[in-house]
Amino acid sequence: MLKNIVFASKPEKEELDERLKAAKNKLSEQQIQITEHKIPVLVLVEGWGTAGKGSAIGKIIQNIDPRFFKVASMDRPTQEEQRKPFLCRYFTRLPEAGKFMLLDSGWMNEVAGMSLREELSRKAYEQRIASIRRFERQLTDNGYLLMKFFCHISKKEQKKRIRMLEKNIDTRWRVGEEDRWQNKHYEKCREVFGQYMEDTNAPSAPWYIIDSKSRKWAELQILEQLTQGIEIALQNRSLAVPLLQNVFPLKQMPRLAEIPLDKAVAEQEYKEELNRLQKQLGELHNRLYRKKVPVVIAYEGWDAAGKGGNIKRITGALDARGYEVHPIASPEPHEKARHYLWRFWTRLPKEGHIAIFDRSWYGRVMVERLEGFCSENDWKRAYNEINEFEKELHDWGAVIIKFWVQIDKDTQLARFTARQNTPGKQWKITDEDWRNREKWDEYEIAVNEMIQKTSTTYAPWHILESVDKRYARLKALKIVIEELEKVL
Amino acid sequence: MLKNIVFASKPEKEELDERLKAAKNKLSEQQIQITEHKIPVLVLVEGWGTAGKGSAIGKIIQNIDPRFFKVASMDRPTQEEQRKPFLCRYFTRLPEAGKFMLLDSGWMNEVAGMSLREELSRKAYEQRIASIRRFERQLTDNGYLLMKFFCHISKKEQKKRIRMLEKNIDTRWRVGEEDRWQNKHYEKCREVFGQYMEDTNAPSAPWYIIDSKSRKWAELQILEQLTQGIEIALQNRSLAVPLLQNVFPLKQMPRLAEIPLDKAVAEQEYKEELNRLQKQLGELHNRLYRKKVPVVIAYEGWDAAGKGGNIKRITGALDARGYEVHPIASPEPHEKARHYLWRFWTRLPKEGHIAIFDRSWYGRVMVERLEGFCSENDWKRAYNEINEFEKELHDWGAVIIKFWVQIDKDTQLARFTARQNTPGKQWKITDEDWRNREKWDEYEIAVNEMIQKTSTTYAPWHILESVDKRYARLKALKIVIEELEKVL
Repeated sequence: MLKNIVFASKPEKEELDERLKAAKNKLSEQQIQITEHKIPVLVLVEGWGTAGKGSAIGKIIQNIDPRFFKVASMDRPTQEEQRKPFLCRYFTRLPEAGKFMLLDSGWMNEVAGMSLREELSRKAYEQRIASIRRFERQLTDNGYLLMKFFCHISKKEQKKRIRMLEKNIDTRWRVGEEDRWQNKHYEKCREVFGQYMEDTNAPSAPWYIIDSKSRKWAELQILEQLTQGIEIALQNRSLAVPLLQNVFPLKQMPRLAEIPLDKAVAEQEYKEELNRLQKQLGELHNRLYRKKVPVVIAYEGWDAAGKGGNIKRITGALDARGYEVHPIASPEPHEKARHYLWRFWTRLPKEGHIAIFDRSWYGRVMVERLEGFCSENDWKRAYNEINEFEKELHDWGAVIIKFWVQIDKDTQLARFTARQNTPGKQWKITDEDWRNREKWDEYEIAVNEMIQKTSTTYAPWHILESVDKRYARLKALKIVIEELEKVL
Repeated sequence: MLKNIVFASKPEKEELDERLKAAKNKLSEQQIQITEHKIPVLVLVEGWGTAGKGSAIGKIIQNIDPRFFKVASMDRPTQEEQRKPFLCRYFTRLPEAGKFMLLDSGWMNEVAGMSLREELSRKAYEQRIASIRRFERQLTDNGYLLMKFFCHISKKEQKKRIRMLEKNIDTRWRVGEEDRWQNKHYEKCREVFGQYMEDTNAPSAPWYIIDSKSRKWAELQILEQLTQGIEIALQNRSLAVPLLQNVFPLKQMPRLAEIPLDKAVAEQEYKEELNRLQKQLGELHNRLYRKKVPVVIAYEGWDAAGKGGNIKRITGALDARGYEVHPIASPEPHEKARHYLWRFWTRLPKEGHIAIFDRSWYGRVMVERLEGFCSENDWKRAYNEINEFEKELHDWGAVIIKFWVQIDKDTQLARFTARQNTPGKQWKITDEDWRNREKWDEYEIAVNEMIQKTSTTYAPWHILESVDKRYARLKALKIVIEELEKVL
């Protein structure tokens, strides 16, 4: 995409000033609408070294109230960041609803840079491109406006700028080894950048190549494209998004009603088995840590099915420094203002660690669906988005274990009643639990659909029959051990 | 504190099991009260390498619901963390109200470790001790329960454990270079650890030395101390805390009423000066970045005094990648659940960066005082706590610039009215602004007290006379330039 580009010619000074003034005013007005309609805007400024990415961002934000924007300058990933999936540091920086986030270089720079330094095999490059396409599509599908700019200058212009900056001790630090390298290998870079842009050019998030020889002209081009993009986003904000077909291999799963719940284990056998399995898991945890495998365990299930006690039997076997339990309640305001997967991306384990989610991202297709916290289009789209999310974790090397803790309606009633009658346990039961119980049948439909549509081969659901809690605990331990042994 | 310790003797198995059961039950019950009364609990587990810190934490949390605790294992600071004040990574991890945070090693391990590796001069060590004492006192003053444990084992026992762990490939990684070093220099470590504990032993947060030769016995000691500490915290939770005298040098400051507001600058002169000063500041920003000096600028002032426009003239001179503006609104739920300085610690600039706060931590002694969002004891204590906070930033090497943007009551009225009559500016004026205006006189008392009590020599207030906004903008630019030049 970077070959034989014919740019519009730069207007005369007078016209340029006038259009600039108009674009600035427009952006000033639009920021209010963006806030009003709660649209999150992500502006990605990529481009050649010394092309003026930072100063372009500086110009844009002069038109936006500081309450409504953030700027992040993305260097190479830190050691800490390298212990997470590569998209994690971008996902966690997503703007809130009604706010702008401007990124000075982003995932393009990271991936194209690695490609140039020959740190990625062909296959790894393609995997990342696929991840990026899914990531960008998920953003726009979820109402994000994503504007991608590439600031372009010629080899000659870049050389001139590098020399200029190097002359002054106070600007010399701005020229990195990478900039000089780029200039020396300009043709190769042009090819890789162009290829990347072709690979990630999508109708909902196209690339805008900005002629950056003149700062003011570059500013105008960006502002005009940005304000146009915002205008379209404002018009389209109520449109539904197409539902994509699932492209991941699925496992055949039983329906909840078909699952026999009479499995049980005797007290003495339980104690011995528990002891043995916990010891085994503890040893695996050490190995996991040494081999830097991340593990994600998600628990879903009926209220009072025994999730908490089940989790406790897993954690009882683990070193406290190597795992974290994330109880997922309804989202707080700052979480609600972001992509619904944001609060899970921000809670991913480091390599070698275990993250246990007590309730999870599946809330989207259960409680959010049933309570109308999101639109029908949102939750229908979510099956695929969740499969994609888990694919990302899987590609990163994570072991993903998903448990549905199953009981029948009578068992739930018995446990609710017992809780209510036990002083130390009353805090565990709320009016909401009773309300949810009334919707049992609707939930069952949703759960069945969820299990059918998200049991991918790389992240299948496991059913824990938990009328006998001891049985469910031992089964969970066995499954965790089995899944870990596969990779260790 | 680590010499000639006489530990209580370990009870017989039967007694031990019984007491352990009782302590566990007690903690299970207490966690509910902790949540109910919104007490944040910070448990610091320090000690010798291989003394069993991690497993002690593992035992404690088995008695707490995962919704109510977090565990963090503090390694040596990352590069990213090294670019912040040393207490920052602890402050940002403070538990929420009603929750437990358990730290596997913390600031003791960091500071004593540096001391042992001779990375701290005598003076630097003492500075850190003073910081830590202030930090811990601020925590307990603000209602945190801070429990500090030191897990103690003998040289011989440590040696034995290191050998055991080294035998197995899966546990070998647990033995660090540091553990071996400690064992080799046991006597020296004992001295440094003991000295550190003496230096930081405070009535409100004393050290508990735990005889850790037997795991179970160590668990019991910790659980008994912890439950006792919680019991006392529950009893004391409504007690007021003594107000400490200010110990930092203060600058004499005028009262607001004494400040002449007739200063003005002509349009033409303003344009030229603005241009000149912005250019100068832009160059300083480059130098700042190169010399890695962090800068914190706080804006406070009357509504409609012109803070926003003033900030814009500063940021207009800066590289967008090197600063961030933090507009401070009323705290969100997850912020309210923490120490009131938490949301500022989490927003500190990196070295070489500038953080501009549009409103700041001074809300504690203005809006929170006047609206009764905190107790009288809270805001009266805050003057000193804020001076301490800024001292921390100053010791870290930060330039701190605080602006009070001053106008008179008539000017405010004129600007409110103008905003209300200008379609594009109506969103800037709310009912709350009018309500605050009614409390002008009360605010003036609070502001005067604030300026008198927090104008330390290392972080004095600067008054910006802003009836003529142009004058105020130029003055702000000049002050920023002057303060930066002092350190560059």
